[in-house]
Amino acid sequence: MEDYGRFLALLVSALLVGFLSVIFALIWVFHYREGLSWDGGAGEFNWHPVLIVTGFVFIQGIAIIVYRLPWTWKCSKLLMKFIHAGLNTIAMILAIVSMVAVFEYHNARNIPNMYSLHSWIGLTAVIFYSLQLLLGFAVFLLPFAAVPLRAALMPIHIYSGLLIFATVIASALMGITEKLIFSLKNPAYSTSPPEAIFVNCLGLLIVIFGALVLWMASRPHWKRPPEELPKVPRRSGGTPEGTEAESTMTDCSNADKSDVGFNSEAARKRNLKLDEAGQRSTM
Amino acid sequence: MEDYGRFLALLVSALLVGFLSVIFALIWVFHYREGLSWDGGAGEFNWHPVLIVTGFVFIQGIAIIVYRLPWTWKCSKLLMKFIHAGLNTIAMILAIVSMVAVFEYHNARNIPNMYSLHSWIGLTAVIFYSLQLLLGFAVFLLPFAAVPLRAALMPIHIYSGLLIFATVIASALMGITEKLIFSLKNPAYSTSPPEAIFVNCLGLLIVIFGALVLWMASRPHWKRPPEELPKVPRRSGGTPEGTEAESTMTDCSNADKSDVGFNSEAARKRNLKLDEAGQRSTM
Repeated sequence: MEDYGRFLALLVSALLVGFLSVIFALIWVFHYREGLSWDGGAGEFNWHPVLIVTGFVFIQGIAIIVYRLPWTWKCSKLLMKFIHAGLNTIAMILAIVSMVAVFEYHNARNIPNMYSLHSWIGLTAVIFYSLQLLLGFAVFLLPFAAVPLRAALMPIHIYSGLLIFATVIASALMGITEKLIFSLKNPAYSTSPPEAIFVNCLGLLIVIFGALVLWMASRPHWKRPPEELPKVPRRSGGTPEGTEAESTMTDCSNADKSDVGFNSEAARKRNLKLDEAGQRSTM
Repeated sequence: MEDYGRFLALLVSALLVGFLSVIFALIWVFHYREGLSWDGGAGEFNWHPVLIVTGFVFIQGIAIIVYRLPWTWKCSKLLMKFIHAGLNTIAMILAIVSMVAVFEYHNARNIPNMYSLHSWIGLTAVIFYSLQLLLGFAVFLLPFAAVPLRAALMPIHIYSGLLIFATVIASALMGITEKLIFSLKNPAYSTSPPEAIFVNCLGLLIVIFGALVLWMASRPHWKRPPEELPKVPRRSGGTPEGTEAESTMTDCSNADKSDVGFNSEAARKRNLKLDEAGQRSTM
């Protein structure tokens, strides 16, 4: 891998900043707020920021860059797809639970639901995220979709994934803004009490985490190298040139046998051709 | 250009949505709020959303995709750089004026400045935007920077540009959230009065505009084709392979003479090679 040291430094920074964001969210609700509970009270609402930061920001961010970890390049593509889909499923479940917490809290206190821009954009993000997961599962994980369809949908899948991730971060920042205005009354948010400064810093950490993930995900030379095409005669109407064939490997242990083509000149050229067509299925 | 019709449809949609956002911002301040003035009152504050949506969102978005307009590909690269830099300069000036309006409004009413997450992230975006503009001017517009330096900084310039644009949109959404909570008291934001619904829609329009711009800016096959390298013997230590030479054209009128290489196979291949190295200076 080109610039392995730099990639590693960025990855460690992202993990550190993401982990710190989760810790900050926990300190916010336990030190400054009412902690966690599931009784329709403020403690139930507090699951919302904790689960959003943990699942919808941190875990989603890791799911985005999981193909880029060079030590996974010996694992089968299928295994990595399962890990990618699995992490995104966990993130989606946490996001949905976090929304249930808010709805239950609102209903218990007769606060209207879905009136704010935060709720509009947040719910839209959850809906698109679920659609993205379903479509990704049907097209890229199940073995039924034709290769041209996968090739046509892959650029949209990648773009939507990054756009949803950015939208989730924007929505989280709006949520932080709302919550600080509503809950800081005496002293008010505008007088910058310690909680305000602390939670603003949580917002900055989330932005930095997002920036690191988006940088790592958008460097073409850090893409997972394409796997060797199986050496079988091409049937008419079969795999189009340059589209990755599905790996037959199922785990990392027997991956060495397909190692031949990694970083070869031929693979690199095919890689570039696919980049132009937006057809590569690794990010 | 590949998919010319689709590009045009997206461009028209982006212009329409962006223009509609500006109209929505104007309707917000004139129909629902106190209009525009420069007297330290609410009318002065109202310059903030109007100028941010017009300059920092709409004009910045146009500046990002200006290289991608296929009818500008016959214009010299230098002219396009001036247009790109010019639009970004206008956006920066409008953003700074819009911040002055808020500071003056706050100071006139003894409201503290810079306490909210919106203000922290918004000011950070303005600072990074100014640095980006200064660095872009020094490295890519002035003729002094060495080609390897331009090549090394270009991927960072592109990534920072898109990240700042996304951050500005996130900051605008936080600003809308803040303003609606603070100004809608009777009836409150939570009761969804017409203004709340209307301004939430403005927020959605801004997100759609951002999504359209980011899609157009990130499709590799919609990049401006690289210009022909001048046919002079390469000196030792000179222009590295695949790095674009500076155009000698100064306007669109005499551009046809360099038209030969547009969309040629050789240009396409060099283009791909540059994509991998992240060295192309067109987005």
